Amino acid sequence: MEKVNIREKLGQFNDHWNPRIVGELNGQHVKAVKLKGEFVWHHHDHEDELFLVTKGTLKMEFRDKTVEVNEGEFIIVPRKVEHRPVAPEEVHILLFEPASTLNTGNVENERTRKTLEKI
Amino acid sequence: MEKVNIREKLGQFNDHWNPRIVGELNGQHVKAVKLKGEFVWHHHDHEDELFLVTKGTLKMEFRDKTVEVNEGEFIIVPRKVEHRPVAPEEVHILLFEPASTLNTGNVENERTRKTLEKI
Repeated sequence: MEKVNIREKLGQFNDHWNPRIVGELNGQHVKAVKLKGEFVWHHHDHEDELFLVTKGTLKMEFRDKTVEVNEGEFIIVPRKVEHRPVAPEEVHILLFEPASTLNTGNVENERTRKTLEKI
Repeated sequence: MEKVNIREKLGQFNDHWNPRIVGELNGQHVKAVKLKGEFVWHHHDHEDELFLVTKGTLKMEFRDKTVEVNEGEFIIVPRKVEHRPVAPEEVHILLFEPASTLNTGNVENERTRKTLEKI
């Protein structure tokens, strides 16, 4: 029952696309991640994902539109929906998603992170 | 797949201790709530709760200590753990918890909100 300071957690690492676990509850993980550049198109078969922006601007691309998510805003991507996170400039994100969620969803490539560090 | 602006949601109401649902994913609810004053001591038998402070300072009382949670910080209260949220000044909170969560947990009184508005 210790509190978590989001900025302090994000200050512990500088690499991109490598989420850290910063909280666990009800079978869900809270993750902190820094994004920069373009990710891969993917979807999750069984998991909805919440992206909360704490710094910068995230462009969440869908096949039919792009949603710009700014600091203090979040977006929920439902399971099965194809999406691609894009960060023209570095963006800091808090993720809420089931513990089972793989970052690249149905795709497996060099961006895939199968084990995540807890910080 | 619309984004949610947290401040805009919190600007839609002014009452205290009356959470609104602002998102749903994986059987969990995201709720926005304004707190002021002292709540009731309670626990949740089956739900862990996350309190993310977006404005002000929350004092989360436990039976053996109090944790001060400031803007940009969160605390996870595990199921079965007795707690009492206290807000000497108004505080704005984002809650993440299972859809089944009742705000007063094992207690039922005039503060209990059995049905929540979605905004």
